[in-house]
Amino acid sequence: MQRANDSISAALAVIGDRWSLLVLRGVFRGLHRFGELRDDLGIASNLLTTRLNRLVEQGVLEKVQYQDRPVRFEYRLTDAGRDLSPVLVSLMQWGDAHQMSGNAPTTLVHATCGAPIENVTRCTQCREDVDATAIRNTNDHQLETT
Amino acid sequence: MQRANDSISAALAVIGDRWSLLVLRGVFRGLHRFGELRDDLGIASNLLTTRLNRLVEQGVLEKVQYQDRPVRFEYRLTDAGRDLSPVLVSLMQWGDAHQMSGNAPTTLVHATCGAPIENVTRCTQCREDVDATAIRNTNDHQLETT
Repeated sequence: MQRANDSISAALAVIGDRWSLLVLRGVFRGLHRFGELRDDLGIASNLLTTRLNRLVEQGVLEKVQYQDRPVRFEYRLTDAGRDLSPVLVSLMQWGDAHQMSGNAPTTLVHATCGAPIENVTRCTQCREDVDATAIRNTNDHQLETT
Repeated sequence: MQRANDSISAALAVIGDRWSLLVLRGVFRGLHRFGELRDDLGIASNLLTTRLNRLVEQGVLEKVQYQDRPVRFEYRLTDAGRDLSPVLVSLMQWGDAHQMSGNAPTTLVHATCGAPIENVTRCTQCREDVDATAIRNTNDHQLETT
C-alpha cells in the first residue's frame, strides 16, 4: 500500500463509524428488527435510526415489510452488505489475536465441515498467502501511460 | 455470525473511527512522519495528535526517534499494527467493488509475482473459500458445558 487508494476512503464514508459496523455485526448475527438491534447495542433510538437510514441509503441494508397490521419493517443485508463479511471477519480475527490475548470468545466455523474459518490475503495467481510486507500498490493509470 | 462476539467491539474500540483507519492507511503506504500524514489526510493537527497517541497507546503504532538535533520522531507499525493489513485490504476490496463501480483506482499486487491479491475467508480444514452464508458462530464456552 504505497500510494493513495480512494476505495478505502469511499468504504469508510459508508461504514467508517463504530456504530454502523456494530449495527452490521448485529444484522449478520441474525438481528433484523429495530428493537432487537437497539437492545443488543444499547444505542439510543435516534442514533440507531440515523445509522439504519444511512445504511439503507447506501445500499448496504434494505428495509423489508414483514407485517401488515400494524405495518412493521425489518432490515436485511443486500448483496453489497453481505460482501462486507470479510471486513467484519478480519476485524474479529484481529480482536481475537490482539485484544483478547488469543482467547477468542466465539469461533466462526464453516457450516459444511464445522472447522474454524480464517481471513487471509492471497495471491490470485500463485495462490500463496501474502502478508503485509509482500503487498505492493500499482496505480493502473500510471502503468498505462508509461 | 449468529451470536455476540466481543472481539469485533474490542477491535473497534481501538480502530473504529474513520480517522484512525485513514492514519493507518497512510502508514501502510509509507507515510511515517506527522507532517506527511497531516498533509495527506488534510486533518487538523490536534485531531491527528489524538489519533496517533491513541494508536501508540494501543500498541498499533510505535513512535521511533529518527533524528537527534533537533529531536524528531516517526511512526512505525508494530506487529499488531501490521496484522491490521487484512482489515484495510478487505475495506479496499469492498470499496473497489461497491463504491467505484468495479473500477479500482489502484491495485494491490503480490511483490514476488506481480499478480493482484485478494482477501478471502477460507476454511482452515477443507481449505475451501467460505462466503458469508456458510459462516456459523460457535460459542466455545457453551460447547464445553453441554
